Amino acid sequence: MKALEDKIRAEGQVRPGHILKVDSFLNHQMDIAFINEIGKEFHRLFSDRPVTKILTVEASGIGIACITAQYFEVPVVFAKKAQSLNLDGSLYTAKVQSYTHNRVYDVILSKKYLTADDHVLIIDDFLANGCAVAGLLEIIEEAGAKVEGVGIVIEKGFQSGGKEIRARGIDLKSLAIIKSMTDTEIEFEEQP
Amino acid sequence: MKALEDKIRAEGQVRPGHILKVDSFLNHQMDIAFINEIGKEFHRLFSDRPVTKILTVEASGIGIACITAQYFEVPVVFAKKAQSLNLDGSLYTAKVQSYTHNRVYDVILSKKYLTADDHVLIIDDFLANGCAVAGLLEIIEEAGAKVEGVGIVIEKGFQSGGKEIRARGIDLKSLAIIKSMTDTEIEFEEQP
Repeated sequence: MKALEDKIRAEGQVRPGHILKVDSFLNHQMDIAFINEIGKEFHRLFSDRPVTKILTVEASGIGIACITAQYFEVPVVFAKKAQSLNLDGSLYTAKVQSYTHNRVYDVILSKKYLTADDHVLIIDDFLANGCAVAGLLEIIEEAGAKVEGVGIVIEKGFQSGGKEIRARGIDLKSLAIIKSMTDTEIEFEEQP
Repeated sequence: MKALEDKIRAEGQVRPGHILKVDSFLNHQMDIAFINEIGKEFHRLFSDRPVTKILTVEASGIGIACITAQYFEVPVVFAKKAQSLNLDGSLYTAKVQSYTHNRVYDVILSKKYLTADDHVLIIDDFLANGCAVAGLLEIIEEAGAKVEGVGIVIEKGFQSGGKEIRARGIDLKSLAIIKSMTDTEIEFEEQP
């Protein structure tokens, strides 16, 4: 998505440890008009899929998932990152290693909101080592639901997550794939 | 908002400790079509205000804020709940006591995304003791920005948060205000 690459080049900031900050428009301040363009693009890419539910994980995926869900006319379910007093009953759980925060956390999802009848599109802001998506895939498998695809806004192509998920035969599409980045330059992989 | 009261009566579940679960449509699974109606109602209620930014706090406020922001055509900024490796530079911070999770946490917001020029509408899913909103108000004050209003989906009218915020002269509007609730019955305050 050319407009996204331009926006990342214009507003993205590279920090030590291969961290790309895009918090001016994507995951702290959110440019809602632009995120609508992202939602439309996800819908274009996955419009042939019989999606019944969009799945994401708190926190920064939620807004993008909600805006995107409008184009699919389906509900969003977001996995929560820690045991909450407000979630009782049966839960799906998976362990996720956070690259950014350098720790392991549990993601949990109430069994009521994902069943074997669901066709799921996973939406998230970033894909690096792919652990968050792997955790969501584990939950979908546990539910017996079908993964229709994974839509990522920004993939760090120089980390292994994308390769591993595609190797499993999963239809992963990223709107921008970063090939390399330095303090002064961000290079993207060419996409069809 | 009558449709919201009906939905809470139909799908809400009361748990010990005055906890109301509405996770079938609001803050775990999200009924995006219904949340659009909520967004429209917030816009109707605050349409006379010169809002430049919608402010919320992660995680469950984010989706509602993003959908609502479409009607105001302004960006969303969400405060984060803990120090993140990805937030550097100058930060606004406030301490918040969580009623649901029974602990104190810091909320932080990058100074880049809230300035003295901003006119802010706070949006959140729940208001009980009002600590989350109080934390956001503290951040807005620190920024020198103007609070245009606070829009809450569900207020627990039997707790003190709403009263305290209104007593400060802040234009707080809640789409549903719960007067009392038991396992079998939820009663709402009449609203104009």
